[in-house]
Amino acid sequence: MKIILDVLGGDAAPAAPIEGAIAALKKNADLQLILVGPKPTIEEAFQKAGIEESRYEIVHAEEAVLNTDHPANFLRTKPNCSMALAFQTLKDREDVDAFLGAGPTGAMLSGCIFKIGRIPGVKRPALLATLPTKSGGLVRLTDAGANMDCKPEYLVQFAKMANEYLKVLGIEKPRIGLLSVGMEEGKGNELTKTVFPLLRDDPSLNFIGNIEGDKVLDGICDLVVSDGFAGNVFVKSLEGGAYFVSDLFKEAVSGTWWRKIGALFQLKALGNVKKPFKYANDSCAPLLGCKKLVVKCHGKSKALNFASALEEVMTYAREHLVEKVAAAIEATPLGE
Amino acid sequence: MKIILDVLGGDAAPAAPIEGAIAALKKNADLQLILVGPKPTIEEAFQKAGIEESRYEIVHAEEAVLNTDHPANFLRTKPNCSMALAFQTLKDREDVDAFLGAGPTGAMLSGCIFKIGRIPGVKRPALLATLPTKSGGLVRLTDAGANMDCKPEYLVQFAKMANEYLKVLGIEKPRIGLLSVGMEEGKGNELTKTVFPLLRDDPSLNFIGNIEGDKVLDGICDLVVSDGFAGNVFVKSLEGGAYFVSDLFKEAVSGTWWRKIGALFQLKALGNVKKPFKYANDSCAPLLGCKKLVVKCHGKSKALNFASALEEVMTYAREHLVEKVAAAIEATPLGE
Repeated sequence: MKIILDVLGGDAAPAAPIEGAIAALKKNADLQLILVGPKPTIEEAFQKAGIEESRYEIVHAEEAVLNTDHPANFLRTKPNCSMALAFQTLKDREDVDAFLGAGPTGAMLSGCIFKIGRIPGVKRPALLATLPTKSGGLVRLTDAGANMDCKPEYLVQFAKMANEYLKVLGIEKPRIGLLSVGMEEGKGNELTKTVFPLLRDDPSLNFIGNIEGDKVLDGICDLVVSDGFAGNVFVKSLEGGAYFVSDLFKEAVSGTWWRKIGALFQLKALGNVKKPFKYANDSCAPLLGCKKLVVKCHGKSKALNFASALEEVMTYAREHLVEKVAAAIEATPLGE
Repeated sequence: MKIILDVLGGDAAPAAPIEGAIAALKKNADLQLILVGPKPTIEEAFQKAGIEESRYEIVHAEEAVLNTDHPANFLRTKPNCSMALAFQTLKDREDVDAFLGAGPTGAMLSGCIFKIGRIPGVKRPALLATLPTKSGGLVRLTDAGANMDCKPEYLVQFAKMANEYLKVLGIEKPRIGLLSVGMEEGKGNELTKTVFPLLRDDPSLNFIGNIEGDKVLDGICDLVVSDGFAGNVFVKSLEGGAYFVSDLFKEAVSGTWWRKIGALFQLKALGNVKKPFKYANDSCAPLLGCKKLVVKCHGKSKALNFASALEEVMTYAREHLVEKVAAAIEATPLGE
């Protein structure tokens, strides 16, 4: 198992990816890594950690893609940055199973599109968002913002691709909802009204119907399908509402010394409030529809997150996620 | 000033509308009401309160439109319900200034469309949502769900109509944002990318650019413009995120007796958490683009809310809101 890791991706790079990589290598004897980042720093850390040289290769890179870089142009403007070299390595080498990075999502997506390409038959690659549910689980949404204007068949493909991913995660018959403005079949815009029967009548999907934005976190489905515009609006609005209330409560429990005394009685419980979000942020997700396995983990990932993400990627590769997605798409050819 | 009030609209009907009406009549000597609801109940309450008979009329109705009724069909299936008779009265009588109701939004909207009609030139009537901001103010969004598939000119009209409303509310140059997935002009779907320059180049509008769902509650604009699908997704997702965090915090501050002791130190502050939402829910809003003044107040309105809503409606009527909306639309004729 050989995975490329972007050592300069994420807020805590390069320390967090390096530490995570070392931890993952120590734990998984069958893992090999191609580390793309500053060679001297990586070499020093790996030698110090006593990692055998046969377990890793280094592709030297000094520059990172930033959130301020235009995501579609980084391959041209920063051809030697770690992410560009990681994609090039993924493209060139046959012996590589996957690429894991915590760099900007938009750049990861355009790297997939322009360097690696889509699985034949896939109309549009899609982004997955991972959100917490009230029952302590997770719910995924796709497309989270890669495709603004979608045709009905794109959404059907998003559902099929994410369905394979969720099955690899161990969910036998993922419950799939369609983001709309009412539960009944007739509710929604032209797009969702066209997509509804397509999802319902597809024997490979466990479609539960429309789902509204205020019900998604109830955990009544495992996957929410949407066009990328509404999906992105959904994810950001949810965040906006959550932060708004969170700030109000924080002020209420700790805005004065008097209230802080009260918070002493709630300390552990208040600490737990963040957990569902932390849990959701910790998870990584593949870029759906890419010809090779490309996995994005959160920009705020710490060493532990990189270590567990590497293990997740191993699972995806071992379970042949890309091949399964390809098979699911090929099983139902869709006209443009 | 003569206003029709749906006495059977809202969760606390008929008591809350009746009490609110009595309070408003007592406070405003120039107000007259046409009350649509159960005649004996209304008469008894009004006589008991000592309201002069010249101040009110009653149109008898026993049935209400429910949330479970199909909003587009109630005029046919419940022709004698209070809302249907209220719309009929608004249509028939020349001496009436406005109609205020707390019944289901969808039904209020179809009443406007099928009984009263649009202002000439208005392509589509639109719904306003009112949301709290972090700075303690309010922000409005339109369309909140009346129009699923929108052409660019619809959104421009939504902006123009709501702009007049906000000016009537005393905001001199309402700051208008366009709901999208990124701040830059190029971000969004085909619709928002087409609408952006139209809003920017309109001299009657104070357009501040795109706004993302997680920024709306920051209070950086007074109005957010959107198609009805994304707008509805936005409002519901925001609510979903807010409730999710609210539940987590409630559990943290009162899930056990020990934590409840802590909450004693925070009692007043915790009570304040709800205030911004209460404030937003208390506000009423006109149905934009309707030929006559139709105002919807929240389904959970209490007597006090009905009283203040009646005063708000008086302001809208006095300020000639409908005429101003008509003038704003006529000032810029748009092709279909």
